[in-house]
Amino acid sequence: MIIDWKKISEKIYEKLKDDVSQITWEKPTLWAILVWENSASLRYIRQKRKWAEFVWMNFELKQFDEKVSEEELLEFIASWNKNRSISWYIVQLPVPQHINSTKLLRTISPDKDVDWFHPENQWKILIWDTSGFAPCTPYWVMWIFKKLNIDLIGKKIVVIGRSNIVWKPITAMLINRWATVTCCNSQTPDITEFTKMSDIVICAAWQPWLLKLEDINDDTIVIDVWFTVIEGKIYWDAEFDNIHANWNLITPVPGWVWRLTVANLLKNTLKAYKIWNM
Amino acid sequence: MIIDWKKISEKIYEKLKDDVSQITWEKPTLWAILVWENSASLRYIRQKRKWAEFVWMNFELKQFDEKVSEEELLEFIASWNKNRSISWYIVQLPVPQHINSTKLLRTISPDKDVDWFHPENQWKILIWDTSGFAPCTPYWVMWIFKKLNIDLIGKKIVVIGRSNIVWKPITAMLINRWATVTCCNSQTPDITEFTKMSDIVICAAWQPWLLKLEDINDDTIVIDVWFTVIEGKIYWDAEFDNIHANWNLITPVPGWVWRLTVANLLKNTLKAYKIWNM
Repeated sequence: MIIDWKKISEKIYEKLKDDVSQITWEKPTLWAILVWENSASLRYIRQKRKWAEFVWMNFELKQFDEKVSEEELLEFIASWNKNRSISWYIVQLPVPQHINSTKLLRTISPDKDVDWFHPENQWKILIWDTSGFAPCTPYWVMWIFKKLNIDLIGKKIVVIGRSNIVWKPITAMLINRWATVTCCNSQTPDITEFTKMSDIVICAAWQPWLLKLEDINDDTIVIDVWFTVIEGKIYWDAEFDNIHANWNLITPVPGWVWRLTVANLLKNTLKAYKIWNM
Repeated sequence: MIIDWKKISEKIYEKLKDDVSQITWEKPTLWAILVWENSASLRYIRQKRKWAEFVWMNFELKQFDEKVSEEELLEFIASWNKNRSISWYIVQLPVPQHINSTKLLRTISPDKDVDWFHPENQWKILIWDTSGFAPCTPYWVMWIFKKLNIDLIGKKIVVIGRSNIVWKPITAMLINRWATVTCCNSQTPDITEFTKMSDIVICAAWQPWLLKLEDINDDTIVIDVWFTVIEGKIYWDAEFDNIHANWNLITPVPGWVWRLTVANLLKNTLKAYKIWNM
């Protein structure tokens, strides 16, 4: 069975629209910086603009030539940190190689960091301090559980993947909520040992068809976060067709990840707006 | 079988002594602040002094009356941050309730934070950035694996416990090194499912005799980090007597945790010394 993401997503966007519409004196703006105009980044930016406007926010893009020096870029960001009329912004990654991206992300003021890049905000997720911003992808995974009324306490959850941006915050968030989490990676001798006895599997491995129907049990819920593109064809980590034909709940493919990830970005933007203006 | 911690610990302390003795022009000093004179804190401080002096370091204690105001204490710490002759220090926890300890720990300059309390240093462990200081307890667990020549890649490791200071850094360090880690806690329906098939179990749960011989297999290595004191008697998380009588390798009890944890504190101190003076 496919998780009804349309219903989930619509509810979230309706709520966002509602919250934004209650701000009567001005539209909040999501500010973005784009340094490297590659097709993936442009697609991201388009999605962010589209959904920002959908919930009645403004979207403003500041574009740099990709030859911009690191110094000039960091100075510009520092000026946005000081600018009281720009209360939050994102820097679209990746940046060209001559710019040190770690240094860049640390330059963003944590108070304006709606994309959850700054160490300060990352650390807050670890210790369950909710005063910072939420990591956009991991956070919609938590939404799904909430909307499906899944109580995480005591649940056996397998997270497959080892990226800093996804498994670490997901694992921390799940453990903070008393789940039992097994973190598997490409060096795990037999992932099936764990997935077979799991309540939930979260795939974030960028590995085509890694998880098959026979690797899970009939009650396992499958959350598939990443996909790989090989010769123009999209492959998800989970073998979607076989799994969704069974009783197992599984996230739908494709297209839905975007909408929920961006929804969190907009939610962070609204939070930033409220912190700075209310 | 008991892990030969004496040999491990002696080697580490000899190495530390050696490294310190190569600094010929002055002895490094470990500076400490004590605000609340309870018996546990005094014991900690005594151990830190003892082992610092053992490796030929100085140990200097600045003691405050426990009625000291938060403002006065934070001002004092800020003065140490600026004082170039005090390059690192620890603040012995806990502090009295009228002092906000989160605020206090964030006041410590990350460059001088040999006790691994500052968010900046905690975050670095998460992303495997080794430029900061190491968390003292988790780090000796890694030492044990190194000294026993255990290759962590693909190992199945169960971490029992849910504290910010132990499981999170341990889990991050293990996963960074490609282990498969399951984090269990008091809400896990059946911990035995995981411990039975594990290569290594790390107990950090403060729960007397939680892990029994029948919960593990003959090859499982048991690392027991915490103990509980009930009516003056020490209980470890693992049922030591039965497990060590079997083939399983297990950390010895009691007394050894101290020595290795403090060794890491001294190693951090030496690192800080070198950063500031060499």
